[in-house]
Amino acid sequence: MNLFERHRTHFEGAQVACRERFCWSPFPDLPNKYPDTAAAQALGLAAFQAHLGGREPRTFSLDQPGTIGSLGEEISPYTQTGLGICYPKADVDQLFAAAESAMPIWSAASIETRIGVLMEVVDTIYREHLFEIAHAVMHTAGQSFNMAYAGSGVNALDRAIEALVYADQAMRSVAPTARWERQFGPSKIALQKTYRLVPRGVAVCFSCASFPTWNAWPSMMASLATGNAVIVKPHPATVLPMAITVRVFRQVLEAAGFDPNLVTLALDTTAEPLGKLLVKHPKTAIVDFTGSARFGQWVEQNAHPALSFTETAGCNTVVLESVDDLDAVLRSLATTLCMFSAQMCTSPQNIYIPAGGVRTPAGTVPADEVAQRLPAAVSALTGDPKKAAMILATIQSDHTLALLRDMQSQGAQRGRVLLQPRPYTHPEFAHARTSTPLMLQVGKSERDLYGAERFGPISFVITCDDAADALLQATADVKQFGGLTAFLYSTDEDTIARAEVAYARAGAQLTINLTGAMPLNFAAAYSDYHVTGLNPAGNASLTNLAFVASRFCISQSRRPAAA
Amino acid sequence: MNLFERHRTHFEGAQVACRERFCWSPFPDLPNKYPDTAAAQALGLAAFQAHLGGREPRTFSLDQPGTIGSLGEEISPYTQTGLGICYPKADVDQLFAAAESAMPIWSAASIETRIGVLMEVVDTIYREHLFEIAHAVMHTAGQSFNMAYAGSGVNALDRAIEALVYADQAMRSVAPTARWERQFGPSKIALQKTYRLVPRGVAVCFSCASFPTWNAWPSMMASLATGNAVIVKPHPATVLPMAITVRVFRQVLEAAGFDPNLVTLALDTTAEPLGKLLVKHPKTAIVDFTGSARFGQWVEQNAHPALSFTETAGCNTVVLESVDDLDAVLRSLATTLCMFSAQMCTSPQNIYIPAGGVRTPAGTVPADEVAQRLPAAVSALTGDPKKAAMILATIQSDHTLALLRDMQSQGAQRGRVLLQPRPYTHPEFAHARTSTPLMLQVGKSERDLYGAERFGPISFVITCDDAADALLQATADVKQFGGLTAFLYSTDEDTIARAEVAYARAGAQLTINLTGAMPLNFAAAYSDYHVTGLNPAGNASLTNLAFVASRFCISQSRRPAAA
Repeated sequence: MNLFERHRTHFEGAQVACRERFCWSPFPDLPNKYPDTAAAQALGLAAFQAHLGGREPRTFSLDQPGTIGSLGEEISPYTQTGLGICYPKADVDQLFAAAESAMPIWSAASIETRIGVLMEVVDTIYREHLFEIAHAVMHTAGQSFNMAYAGSGVNALDRAIEALVYADQAMRSVAPTARWERQFGPSKIALQKTYRLVPRGVAVCFSCASFPTWNAWPSMMASLATGNAVIVKPHPATVLPMAITVRVFRQVLEAAGFDPNLVTLALDTTAEPLGKLLVKHPKTAIVDFTGSARFGQWVEQNAHPALSFTETAGCNTVVLESVDDLDAVLRSLATTLCMFSAQMCTSPQNIYIPAGGVRTPAGTVPADEVAQRLPAAVSALTGDPKKAAMILATIQSDHTLALLRDMQSQGAQRGRVLLQPRPYTHPEFAHARTSTPLMLQVGKSERDLYGAERFGPISFVITCDDAADALLQATADVKQFGGLTAFLYSTDEDTIARAEVAYARAGAQLTINLTGAMPLNFAAAYSDYHVTGLNPAGNASLTNLAFVASRFCISQSRRPAAA
Repeated sequence: MNLFERHRTHFEGAQVACRERFCWSPFPDLPNKYPDTAAAQALGLAAFQAHLGGREPRTFSLDQPGTIGSLGEEISPYTQTGLGICYPKADVDQLFAAAESAMPIWSAASIETRIGVLMEVVDTIYREHLFEIAHAVMHTAGQSFNMAYAGSGVNALDRAIEALVYADQAMRSVAPTARWERQFGPSKIALQKTYRLVPRGVAVCFSCASFPTWNAWPSMMASLATGNAVIVKPHPATVLPMAITVRVFRQVLEAAGFDPNLVTLALDTTAEPLGKLLVKHPKTAIVDFTGSARFGQWVEQNAHPALSFTETAGCNTVVLESVDDLDAVLRSLATTLCMFSAQMCTSPQNIYIPAGGVRTPAGTVPADEVAQRLPAAVSALTGDPKKAAMILATIQSDHTLALLRDMQSQGAQRGRVLLQPRPYTHPEFAHARTSTPLMLQVGKSERDLYGAERFGPISFVITCDDAADALLQATADVKQFGGLTAFLYSTDEDTIARAEVAYARAGAQLTINLTGAMPLNFAAAYSDYHVTGLNPAGNASLTNLAFVASRFCISQSRRPAAA
């Protein structure tokens, strides 16, 4: 059976799900539902541990060309010690040359062949590397085990399949051949036409420190499915998940008879970053970037003639106006503010409340009372270290701790500290880098403070004139500073309708009146679009046709047809 | 009947044609086949003449906002006198403001509504303005009447419909709503999701001097169909065809109940160009550009955060290696070198011949003999003024005459002048700006001379080592300097196969061994892709999904579903 046939059921299931956008996944959503989970988890942990160095660093073996040294500086947020892994340092020009020579045969293969090979990559990661990658994500990005399994594992694989579905759809809208006949005066001209899908060239895929696979896997799939090669440039703090990824792609490609150099790894260090060089490399045809808004903007402005697809960050906003059950709302907001210590591009940051308070069935709750009860709900979640560990996990970077200190000091001067951040002791990793959230209450005049993504568990409660003003402020944040998600609580259908239109234009994906077990910022592959492209939080969306359609071009040839 | 229903047959016909890419058009391909053609042609001529000023300029009335003066500097290439038309000079900020306030209602209309209105625009142009626009194109761009009817009339309308087909396809790949249900632990979450198509914003559409409608109409349609507004910025030499266009769009939009300010005209003068200001305007969201490679490159580099879609120019190449019927090939090449005095972005320029000559069934014809017989074939077409008028038409700009003089003088020093350009006397317009073609023979060492688009009837015969070298040189030109079309004559299937791959990668649309009545560079809507995006001749293709898919974004909202 060829690879496409082997994965046809899943692929066709994904096609239907993308079209109808219901809930679907070929994967179990919890680690405990994974087949033979205990054995698989043990194997995954062992595989992860086998990567780690001791006193001597251990070399991550990757048989790619152009190795000119080694590097590696990863530190586990759980142990705050180095992972001791050395990766190959590559000569970038050799990677591009190898990628270019790998492309002609790959891009000449049928769409079905490429999709089949890439579905096999997905399946191989799922069957053989999922728990290994989950541990790798934990000890680089600092996520909890469950989030690493879901958000950086199966959900990211879902987004990878989703990208394949759209790539397939865009490519199949091009007829492979045609016969064309027309009269020109007395003579009839008959032409046989051939339409070739031509890849753009070498793609560079940047992955970020806190959520490496979720954007990178679909980006890689989008480029590869359309015939391009990919050089992966991970954040130096979070290399291992992507190094394992690259190795799997290479093994599956090679086993399928293709050149493994279609996928390679280009590493750098914090001290000597490679990013700009890669973006401006004359052979770079596509750049996928996930990371800081600042570098994302630079990529968008400087990638030309390469295409750029960016997903960065912004000010995700909450408008809390009127509710049926304030406690349920505050629990949901608190959970989302705590989830992975708000180190997600979808975490809310700016919470707008009307000065007149929040309307409830039991009467209006004053704004200041809401601004007290929300931190209390957060504290309730983070007081128990075991619970805290599950939800907050760790802080990926020391920079975030520094930012917390800075924001707390500025917030104290310019407003009120609603909740002070404190390290908590992780029950399994005594040396974990942790912090409970910082919450500040400030006025609208402090917009320079809250008018930027403050990465990490930092949020602002901002009192506004009224509900209309809250919506105005919130959507202005999105337009000006970017925004991916937005959250509205209102029992008034007119307010909801206005908010839907205002956020749609501003370009944040809006969740309305959601409470309960689902994390508010959960984005489901095949159903939820991620990033709109309408504001500075990124120019690309997971996944629509625009994410894939320009990654290939159409070259045609025509010649007189046989009669 | 609503507008979509009125045009459903044509639209669905176009959808099938785009999918299958056979020959199709709802329009007659020759003016004489137009319904009641004599009357229609007379009315069209009268309508054109009614635009013209005499001693006093006549004002082109356009009831758009922000008029702050008037301007107009068009000169007919047929009479070399001014058209005497004054157009409104617009305050650009007012145009953007009006465009922005027109968008919400337009973009909230259904896809079918927008497509219906835009199909009505196509139909109105065809029924009421086709011959008027043909004369307007003649007396600005300088095309022949037949080309103005076909290339700037019905074929351009076909490309407009084609853009609507792809816009529709891209938008319909987004489900409007979905119900999504998932277990989270013990609780089931059910969400109702709404997906909104949100336009990018205000598009600026640049049209060029020599072929105003062919690219502008599909660009306008692509932006409008996806909910955006369009400000049209015509080349100051060729305003009238686009001014008529803008007026028709405005009338049809208004009659359908939409704000006419969805389409406005921003004019400038050669002395005070507006282009950069429009591209960098903070409200510009999309730029469509047709024109010089230099400004096109600037647009691509500077449009950010606006999207850019460019079609510029390049070195279109011919490889002439082996043939069945040399005379037929030379006739076809000569015709294409003469067609509208090679002022088309698809006209060939660099003709590569192996030093060993061209193989024919009657033996090898030496390269120098081919280099003599090709100009002879051109002369045969241009010797008779009546024939010359039909095929060469006029020279759009004085700059082209200056370039002809410069190239002739450089060519004489660095190679051989195969054919000297001469004005010919147009039988109907004694003062027409005309020239027969300049043909030069140069060696590969003169690449700086032929390694750029030399706009106008200028071509180079370049002798190469052999067929493989010819292909190498030709495709190198395409990659380095850009190229839209390419032409190969070879009787050797291996050479053809290699050329197909080489040109596909370089990104020029290749025509192989074509002779006979069809102009070699004819590009058929619904069948031939125009520009690949793979080389400096432009980043956009007429028409594929990439041309439309990023002109809108997807904003979603989700809320708990009713049980």
